[in-house]
Amino acid sequence: MKADAIELGEWKSSAKRGGLNRGVSILDFILRIVAFLGTVGSAIGMATTNETLPFVTQFVRFRAEYNDLPMFTFFVIANSIVSAYLLLSLPLSIFHILRSSAERSRILFIFLDTAMLGLLTAGASAAASIVYLAHKGNAKANWFAICRQFNSFCERTSGSLIGSFLGVVAFILLILLSAVALSRR
Amino acid sequence: MKADAIELGEWKSSAKRGGLNRGVSILDFILRIVAFLGTVGSAIGMATTNETLPFVTQFVRFRAEYNDLPMFTFFVIANSIVSAYLLLSLPLSIFHILRSSAERSRILFIFLDTAMLGLLTAGASAAASIVYLAHKGNAKANWFAICRQFNSFCERTSGSLIGSFLGVVAFILLILLSAVALSRR
Repeated sequence: MKADAIELGEWKSSAKRGGLNRGVSILDFILRIVAFLGTVGSAIGMATTNETLPFVTQFVRFRAEYNDLPMFTFFVIANSIVSAYLLLSLPLSIFHILRSSAERSRILFIFLDTAMLGLLTAGASAAASIVYLAHKGNAKANWFAICRQFNSFCERTSGSLIGSFLGVVAFILLILLSAVALSRR
Repeated sequence: MKADAIELGEWKSSAKRGGLNRGVSILDFILRIVAFLGTVGSAIGMATTNETLPFVTQFVRFRAEYNDLPMFTFFVIANSIVSAYLLLSLPLSIFHILRSSAERSRILFIFLDTAMLGLLTAGASAAASIVYLAHKGNAKANWFAICRQFNSFCERTSGSLIGSFLGVVAFILLILLSAVALSRR
C-alpha cells in the first residue's frame, strides 16, 4: 500500500515534469516559427532592395542595389541559411513535444542553435554597421553619407535589420529553453 | 547481497559520471581563460591603436585613432565587457569542478554565455566589416580605401580581430560543454 503510494507519487511527479517539458517544447516550436518569419522577411526585404535615381549623367546611371555592398550580400546569405535551418528544425521540435524526455537531440539543438546565433548576429551586425555609415558617414575617413541621395534604399535596408535582430533574441531564448528542458528530464 | 551489488553498481556509475563532469568542468575553466586572454588582447590591441602620418598641411594633421570610427569603439567596449564577465565567471567555474552536480548555476552559465556570445560576435563582426571597407573601399558608394594612407593603423585593427573571433569559438564550445554536463547529471 505504502509502496503503491510512493509509486503513484513518483508517477505524478514525472507526469508533472513531462507536462512542464511539453510546455517548454511548445514554446520552443512557437519561437522557431517567429524566428523563421523574422529571418525570411529580412532576407527577402534586403534582397529585393534597389533604387534608381531619377537622373542620369552621360556616363553613369545612379543605381543602388543590395549587392553593391558585400556586407549586405553576407546579410542575405546568413539570413537565408538560418531560416532554412529553422524550417528544417521544426519536425524535430514537434518530436520534442511528443517525446519530452529526449536528450541527445536537445544537446544537438543547443549546439546548432548556438552556431546559427553566431552566424545571424554576425550578418545582422555587419549590415547594421554599414547602415550606420550610410546614414551618418564618417568625416575622418572621408566616407560620405550616401543616404542623402538614396533615401528609400536606406529605409529598406534599415527596416530589413529588424527581423534579423528579432531572430537573435529568439535564438537566445531558444537556447535557454533547451537548457531548462535538459535539466528537468 | 544483491542489493549491495546494485548499490555498488549505482555508486560506480555515478562516480563515473562525476568524473566525466569534472573533466568537462576543467575543460570549461581552461576555455574561459583562453577566451579571456583573446578578448582582453583584442580590447587592448584596438584601444592602443593610433597612427600619425609624417606630413601636415596648414590646417590638418593626419592622425587616425580607433575612436574615429564608432564601430571600433563598440568593439573595444564589447570586448572589455566580455573579458570582465569571463574573469568574474572563473570562481563559479572552479565551483563546478569541485561540485560537479550543480544544476541551476549551469543553466545560468548557458544563458549568460549565450548573451555574451551575441555581444562579442556583434562587436567583432561590426569591426570586421569596417576593416574590410578600410582595406578595399567601395567604388559604388564612393568610399575610399583608407589603408593606402594608414598602413600600420589598418594592420593593428585587423590583427585585433583575431582574439575576438577566438573568443567566439570558445563561447560556442563553452555552451556545448555546459549542455553536455547538464545532461549527464
